[in-house]
Amino acid sequence: MSQTCIHERTSHEEIENGQKLQPKFDSNGLIPCITTEVHTNEVIMFAWMNEEALNHTIETGKATYYSRSRGKLWVKGESSGQIQWVKELRTDCDQDVILIKADIGENGAACHTGYKSCFYRKLDGDKLVFDGGERVFDPAEVYKK
Amino acid sequence: MSQTCIHERTSHEEIENGQKLQPKFDSNGLIPCITTEVHTNEVIMFAWMNEEALNHTIETGKATYYSRSRGKLWVKGESSGQIQWVKELRTDCDQDVILIKADIGENGAACHTGYKSCFYRKLDGDKLVFDGGERVFDPAEVYKK
Repeated sequence: MSQTCIHERTSHEEIENGQKLQPKFDSNGLIPCITTEVHTNEVIMFAWMNEEALNHTIETGKATYYSRSRGKLWVKGESSGQIQWVKELRTDCDQDVILIKADIGENGAACHTGYKSCFYRKLDGDKLVFDGGERVFDPAEVYKK
Repeated sequence: MSQTCIHERTSHEEIENGQKLQPKFDSNGLIPCITTEVHTNEVIMFAWMNEEALNHTIETGKATYYSRSRGKLWVKGESSGQIQWVKELRTDCDQDVILIKADIGENGAACHTGYKSCFYRKLDGDKLVFDGGERVFDPAEVYKK
């Protein structure tokens, strides 16, 4: 792997107030990643990254996750065509979460169900109600290969 | 614990397309929670909930997390005064993440550092740069007790 801007963790002070990216990967080597749509700030998905995925995201500008179910790197959109172009990458105070703002195109969808956002239901009383708009694509069609 | 709207997980179809909240807690009994500011959609923090915290959030309308470091329920704002009033609660396609939209008041701050959002730095080239505005409060003052 090429040298990147990912550094070893140092002090609490450096992590919270420093200028070096010092992400904390958990005992499985993973860090949570929140992905938002850059124009609306809408949270569209949540996934995990390992160090390779984070590096790949920074180097290519394409949101890249680690698929825990498939046990491998997951360049978002490789199957569905729904590439997420990273416009901004942030971390939090203790650098154990990544936040990206992505451009998914005017008619893009982040969710494997075909909805723009994975968060297409909200709690209303004791029920989940759908309010994620229409499906952007038909998953049976997109993932048929 | 009182009966709530949290149900046991059933089928894949029910989880993805159903109206019942069937959250998946991980092997530690926790589910990730993304918190946004309701007016701007800005992601302000990320934390974990156990079932009790999720119930408490739904029942009281105050965002309640599980503090992994302190090993106990954490009603956000109990120490700092920075209560997060939940205006909307969502879950994702496979119901293993919670998303809340919270009202933190006009001059509220979610981060223990005093910034509005924990994500007060963005990656610019190979450096993290601060762009989270001014600190809303002085942590030394707020947490001195």
